Amino acid sequence: MARRTTRTSHSEPVILLTGFEPFGGETINPSWEAARALHHAIIAGHRVVAVELPCVFGRAAAVLGKALRRHRPVVTICTGQAGGRPGLAPERVAINVDDARIPDNAGAQPLDRPIARRGPAAYFTTLPNKAIVQAIRAQGIPADLSNTAGTFVCNHVAYALMQWLARSRQRPRPRGGFIHVPFIPEQVAERPETPSLPLDAIVEGLAIACEVAVQTQRDAVASLGREH
Amino acid sequence: MARRTTRTSHSEPVILLTGFEPFGGETINPSWEAARALHHAIIAGHRVVAVELPCVFGRAAAVLGKALRRHRPVVTICTGQAGGRPGLAPERVAINVDDARIPDNAGAQPLDRPIARRGPAAYFTTLPNKAIVQAIRAQGIPADLSNTAGTFVCNHVAYALMQWLARSRQRPRPRGGFIHVPFIPEQVAERPETPSLPLDAIVEGLAIACEVAVQTQRDAVASLGREH
Amino acid sequence: MARRTTRTSHSEPVILLTGFEPFGGETINPSWEAARALHHAIIAGHRVVAVELPCVFGRAAAVLGKALRRHRPVVTICTGQAGGRPGLAPERVAINVDDARIPDNAGAQPLDRPIARRGPAAYFTTLPNKAIVQAIRAQGIPADLSNTAGTFVCNHVAYALMQWLARSRQRPRPRGGFIHVPFIPEQVAERPETPSLPLDAIVEGLAIACEVAVQTQRDAVASLGREH
Amino acid sequence: MARRTTRTSHSEPVILLTGFEPFGGETINPSWEAARALHHAIIAGHRVVAVELPCVFGRAAAVLGKALRRHRPVVTICTGQAGGRPGLAPERVAINVDDARIPDNAGAQPLDRPIARRGPAAYFTTLPNKAIVQAIRAQGIPADLSNTAGTFVCNHVAYALMQWLARSRQRPRPRGGFIHVPFIPEQVAERPETPSLPLDAIVEGLAIACEVAVQTQRDAVASLGREH
Repeated sequence: MARRTTRTSHSEPVILLTGFEPFGGETINPSWEAARALHHAIIAGHRVVAVELPCVFGRAAAVLGKALRRHRPVVTICTGQAGGRPGLAPERVAINVDDARIPDNAGAQPLDRPIARRGPAAYFTTLPNKAIVQAIRAQGIPADLSNTAGTFVCNHVAYALMQWLARSRQRPRPRGGFIHVPFIPEQVAERPETPSLPLDAIVEGLAIACEVAVQTQRDAVASLGREH
Repeated sequence: MARRTTRTSHSEPVILLTGFEPFGGETINPSWEAARALHHAIIAGHRVVAVELPCVFGRAAAVLGKALRRHRPVVTICTGQAGGRPGLAPERVAINVDDARIPDNAGAQPLDRPIARRGPAAYFTTLPNKAIVQAIRAQGIPADLSNTAGTFVCNHVAYALMQWLARSRQRPRPRGGFIHVPFIPEQVAERPETPSLPLDAIVEGLAIACEVAVQTQRDAVASLGREH
Repeated sequence: MARRTTRTSHSEPVILLTGFEPFGGETINPSWEAARALHHAIIAGHRVVAVELPCVFGRAAAVLGKALRRHRPVVTICTGQAGGRPGLAPERVAINVDDARIPDNAGAQPLDRPIARRGPAAYFTTLPNKAIVQAIRAQGIPADLSNTAGTFVCNHVAYALMQWLARSRQRPRPRGGFIHVPFIPEQVAERPETPSLPLDAIVEGLAIACEVAVQTQRDAVASLGREH
Repeated sequence: MARRTTRTSHSEPVILLTGFEPFGGETINPSWEAARALHHAIIAGHRVVAVELPCVFGRAAAVLGKALRRHRPVVTICTGQAGGRPGLAPERVAINVDDARIPDNAGAQPLDRPIARRGPAAYFTTLPNKAIVQAIRAQGIPADLSNTAGTFVCNHVAYALMQWLARSRQRPRPRGGFIHVPFIPEQVAERPETPSLPLDAIVEGLAIACEVAVQTQRDAVASLGREH
């Protein structure tokens, strides 16, 4: 990774990389641990700006919006923890519903509530997701394309991001998407049957995603993911 | 189940129940085995018509469309096999993409291709999915709400169904959705670590789904499913 | 199952079938729910006697010993809950160690302690385990051979049983073993990604196991189970 | 890891580290890839000798026996691939049975055959397994104690090793055990729902195991592993 990341001045175009604060009883969130490790890294001529989002419906989207307006990133990658998944997983789509199985960090638990009342049922993300999966795998790190970001705050943020990007007048059109990351091993000490991935590997995977996102215009043609 | 299903004449309103032919190297598809077991059953005053769909992009939607025109069902439940899932799973949403990890039964393997070029990114299904999950569980059969029907022929059919229903002028507006079913035990004899469910339980679960679908106008308010 | 089980007088040879009380925060234990459903059933000319064991190291073996002395069963099948497994699982072996990841129901949590100080490292069980797996599967119920009963009270009881049988002077030599059963669906409502099996199917599976155990002298020759 | 491993002359006591050749349709075996990466490393004053074992019943034990006689290791760690497990897993016990679900690399598929006709039902391994698990986890790599090495060539080798060590007159008594390792990501590209671990992390985990094995006399007291 060293070759990819050198620290320098702040004139480069920006990659916005967000992670979440811990939730659901965890004391750590690997998405933020990984994002913060890349803060101010220079990847393929772009500067990474890492921002931590609260795990709160509404407020998470607001903090994201503020960062988008401030940094005007050419690429935005929001990340979140997907406990139980075995590798990094770019999300294909965000759907227009908040439906929380557990309360968020402010105690809210919306059920079957649209995110945007007049918004479309879904947005497809605009990162080169398959090229990202292939590049991460090529470095010996598990990754797969995912067809659902769930209906909790992760999907909420992904939908908000794609709605913001769809309305953006910035040119060239900025791109963005969402990547779920697995638990790290310290989170599964009490449930070792659950997959996890060393934090180093997650950081490396996200650095690769940033690099591919700024260097790839057309996504790879490949069959990835699961049938259902 | 006997109390629910008695056989009688053909004047009742119709529940259309589809299953798929086998695919992916399997010699049986539990979705069709279960659907056929309910063919001509009378459930809550409705007659079940079971139709087998080919596991072929395009043609599956065509066969479904023909059945919809012919039977004018008030409720349509398409079902498909989701190998590896531990219970029945009503799908919340169908997305506008065909992206096949394996070839369909006609050898086609579309990659990242829209189902409907000008169609919306997604349709939400219109069955009372949570009430269905709760009613199936109440009979001691595992079930959960799912947020992805994948991007293979199952999602293709679910999208085609919801598009058809969205355009239908039939009143009251017909409803429909998709339910994934697990493997049955004979399919996992060589991979017994994979969950499965006895066929009886799947049939019973689908009968319950039919009953709830025709009797429930507003879905249950409940927190179900996974965070991601 | 009706053909197998008719209720009659108490002169038949006995199959002892044990299940456990709930543990680990559960309010129900499917092993006992299934065993009690077969209490006093007549299977292949044998009468089932069901006994509930406490989930307590030492005491569980004592209660089992008392039942063995009282009923002098020709076949003993102890059962326990193996949450997370997808089917019924006869155990091949019991090992000479108590090593509890959680406290038992009396609060004891032995770590790396031999069950029998001078006992062998392990006992193989003496049921026709593979024939049982095959017969259960033939009825459309998931089953597999298991190579570990863990190191909690289940393994403790299995070891105690096999030690008792090894020392028994009863002739013909009584046989016995251990079968783990999955969660039932009501236990996984909050974690629906976990496999479960309807109670009916578990009861039917254990009835089949009883039948095969008394009718089969030599186990089936078959490749079952996992590599590791 | 660099601090642990420096290359030097050949007068140090030996840690024998074995891995397997590929089997079961794989073209690579992460156990041997990891072991070979540590060949001739110096860990805590001991020299690692890595030996590849054939995945063949009988012959694997013979190659192991030859290496044991030649190198007279103070610690022996045999390793094997356990596809599907999420982390490194020291094995607690090896049982006296060959029971192959698939043929070995010579086409043999023994079923329910004792490894040693008069041997004990099982041997417990003699590495400080729990201390190894804790030390690997402390470096952010997933690990857990396992209660079954299966009944394929891995268990066969583990049993043969422990039998050899039990009979050894070498003093101080040499110690040994078996560690299963997960798939590496390139093996699961077509089944990305299966857990895997980067090869780097496996190598690091085995280096830690070697270090702990030679430095720890009494195993840690800890509750690890699963209930069943």
